[in-house]
Amino acid sequence: MGSKPGTPVRLVVHKYGGTSVGSIERIQAVARKVATACQSGDRVVVVVSAMSGETNRLTALAHEISSHPAPREFDVLLASGEQVSIALLTMALHEYGIKSKSFLADQIRVRTNNDHIRARIEKIDGDNVLSVINDDIVPVIAGFQGVDDCGDITTIGRGGSDTSAVAVAAAIEADECLIYTDVDGVYTADPNVVSGAKRLAHVNFEEMLELASLGAKVLHSRAVEFAHKFAVPIRVLSSFEEGEGTLISQNDTDLERPVISGVTFEKEIAKLTVSNVNDVPGVAFEILGPIGNAGIVVDMIVQNVSHRGHTDLSFTVPAGDMAVALEILEDVAKQEAFTGSVVDGAQGIAKVTVVGVGMRSSAGVARKMFETLAEKNINIMMISTSEIKISVVIDASYVELATRALHSAFDLDAKPVASEPP
Amino acid sequence: MGSKPGTPVRLVVHKYGGTSVGSIERIQAVARKVATACQSGDRVVVVVSAMSGETNRLTALAHEISSHPAPREFDVLLASGEQVSIALLTMALHEYGIKSKSFLADQIRVRTNNDHIRARIEKIDGDNVLSVINDDIVPVIAGFQGVDDCGDITTIGRGGSDTSAVAVAAAIEADECLIYTDVDGVYTADPNVVSGAKRLAHVNFEEMLELASLGAKVLHSRAVEFAHKFAVPIRVLSSFEEGEGTLISQNDTDLERPVISGVTFEKEIAKLTVSNVNDVPGVAFEILGPIGNAGIVVDMIVQNVSHRGHTDLSFTVPAGDMAVALEILEDVAKQEAFTGSVVDGAQGIAKVTVVGVGMRSSAGVARKMFETLAEKNINIMMISTSEIKISVVIDASYVELATRALHSAFDLDAKPVASEPP
Repeated sequence: MGSKPGTPVRLVVHKYGGTSVGSIERIQAVARKVATACQSGDRVVVVVSAMSGETNRLTALAHEISSHPAPREFDVLLASGEQVSIALLTMALHEYGIKSKSFLADQIRVRTNNDHIRARIEKIDGDNVLSVINDDIVPVIAGFQGVDDCGDITTIGRGGSDTSAVAVAAAIEADECLIYTDVDGVYTADPNVVSGAKRLAHVNFEEMLELASLGAKVLHSRAVEFAHKFAVPIRVLSSFEEGEGTLISQNDTDLERPVISGVTFEKEIAKLTVSNVNDVPGVAFEILGPIGNAGIVVDMIVQNVSHRGHTDLSFTVPAGDMAVALEILEDVAKQEAFTGSVVDGAQGIAKVTVVGVGMRSSAGVARKMFETLAEKNINIMMISTSEIKISVVIDASYVELATRALHSAFDLDAKPVASEPP
Repeated sequence: MGSKPGTPVRLVVHKYGGTSVGSIERIQAVARKVATACQSGDRVVVVVSAMSGETNRLTALAHEISSHPAPREFDVLLASGEQVSIALLTMALHEYGIKSKSFLADQIRVRTNNDHIRARIEKIDGDNVLSVINDDIVPVIAGFQGVDDCGDITTIGRGGSDTSAVAVAAAIEADECLIYTDVDGVYTADPNVVSGAKRLAHVNFEEMLELASLGAKVLHSRAVEFAHKFAVPIRVLSSFEEGEGTLISQNDTDLERPVISGVTFEKEIAKLTVSNVNDVPGVAFEILGPIGNAGIVVDMIVQNVSHRGHTDLSFTVPAGDMAVALEILEDVAKQEAFTGSVVDGAQGIAKVTVVGVGMRSSAGVARKMFETLAEKNINIMMISTSEIKISVVIDASYVELATRALHSAFDLDAKPVASEPP
């Protein structure tokens, strides 16, 4: 290996998801991709997920035994999936003449907290990985897993291999973290819904955070947070096709970039409202504290203006958590301080968001959004804004219509290709 | 948990092989067995193998990629099998109300050398396991695997979980190591060949070493060596039926024990002979050294008396190693010191052995063995003796006949059960 004279050596992390290593043939294809990168002079570190289907197979085995398997043991079980894929990929690299060694999370000390099933990476020993690279060996690292202070195996949640890859890239100060996936980049909208959706050549971290967390299912949002925090450029690209993909970085110098970078939506959400509560300090905490304690992720929170000392608080949660959240709120409402309050839950709703760093300095984005929805007779139930996005909650049945209309209104549609003369 | 008042607390290791944990139902049955033992007052440590079929499945995956997968990576791959079974068994124990935690080899520091695929256990941290037991938690430990000084995963060869179990038992000074398997004990001969074969209530370590290494496929011979070295009593018993099994220990006080404890045989061996070599010091080493260096296990070695300063050396190896061994010997024979020597290999042979501590003090065992074989017109090609066994190499086609004849001759046949009157 080693680079050609004069070529700057790039240090890159390649991350391949479950679909990319889903069969022996695909593992071999990944090995060829890595070998090509090495031959071009890159120094490569590989992070892989379990073969697709494996996590589901293991989960099914656990659930044959227990409806609530102990999280510590569930992590031991699931982590075996990546153990298989790192060993097989390393063997495949050897067949292409690449020196390579597999590493489990504990071998490169991917230290996490002990919150099993959804642990958070705290530290990775980059020196260990770098010393392997300096021996001209390609490290193949198990994603998705870590070890806690006791030496127990942890896992960092579905899609966590993206985060593992970025964390490794941060630890070794890689030039770029390439996330190979089954799509060829980040789009202005879901191409299944908006036929004119275009691939974005570049988005910045904040935009990508909004795009990732709001259902552009390309990249795990924690991975983007990590990349942002440690300034690791990420490139999302296809395992199966050639292409430049989408670069996600802090680079904001592109003056030509459009105001709005994309329109995303999220179904499967539920809205909970506690109405007629005393508008006193601490009331939001008393309502949302128990929800957070139950491990339910609250997304949008809207509190209306006070009316005669009373107010309404609404928030959204994943649809699957609505029943539990309702129970909790009903307990809260029984307290004396909440006398007279009313708890309500609604499903069949969706969130649509327009994202764009450009809107920071561009007036009229909100106006255009509301106008576009009004033209389609779509009622807005909740609104939430930040510097780089505006989200609205609407009836779920209008979500595709709203997404297409906003995509056009913000001039995101690809130009139609001129047809050949007949 | 905790024992009933007045009952002495036993510390026992249970080992369950791949067949015993081969399905979810069987894992649940193992959990019930462990729970029953805990309820009876035993303090239990469990060691398990991979679910049956899993090791073969993983091996097939590796061989789709490479005909010679790197041993380091092959170990990473195979070790995932036990990782699955420890997690599932621990979950099943929880369902029976037993506090339990799974442990991979590195978590209890099963230190081995770095001889991948066939590593040897050097040390186990018993304190770690004992502290778990003292918290009234049942440790469920992955057999078959270890870690070397670099923290790399190793495996200790097929059947190695027996050795893991005994090594754990030795490290924690357990009262007994119970090896649950698919047979109900050690027999005087293979019941598939000798219909009158009987289960032995007790054999000592040396006998078991002969029985284990000579094809009574009940127990891995390294496990017996370990048990012997650390004086750990082993009990072999069935996972599927109740019974006392066979106790393997150093206890030799049973005056009623028969002279011969069993008759075993081994097919799939090959005999190699180097004839007409100079009978000078070091010649055996020059012949057998290169064979050992190639990782080939040599079993019987016979050197005939010198004849005019020349001698013949014969030895047996596994049949699968004959081709390689022949090549090595032909290279050896090309050396000047071996001028005039002739190399020869023979397959289609088998070894039959009678084993018994009693023969130490009993004359006439050899005489009776040779007489019995002669009566059946079976030609003996090689003879090798030790204090507790006599082995002969014969034509493989006579091996069942020889085994049955010897079993009868040494009065090992079970008394026929009196039939009911019609």
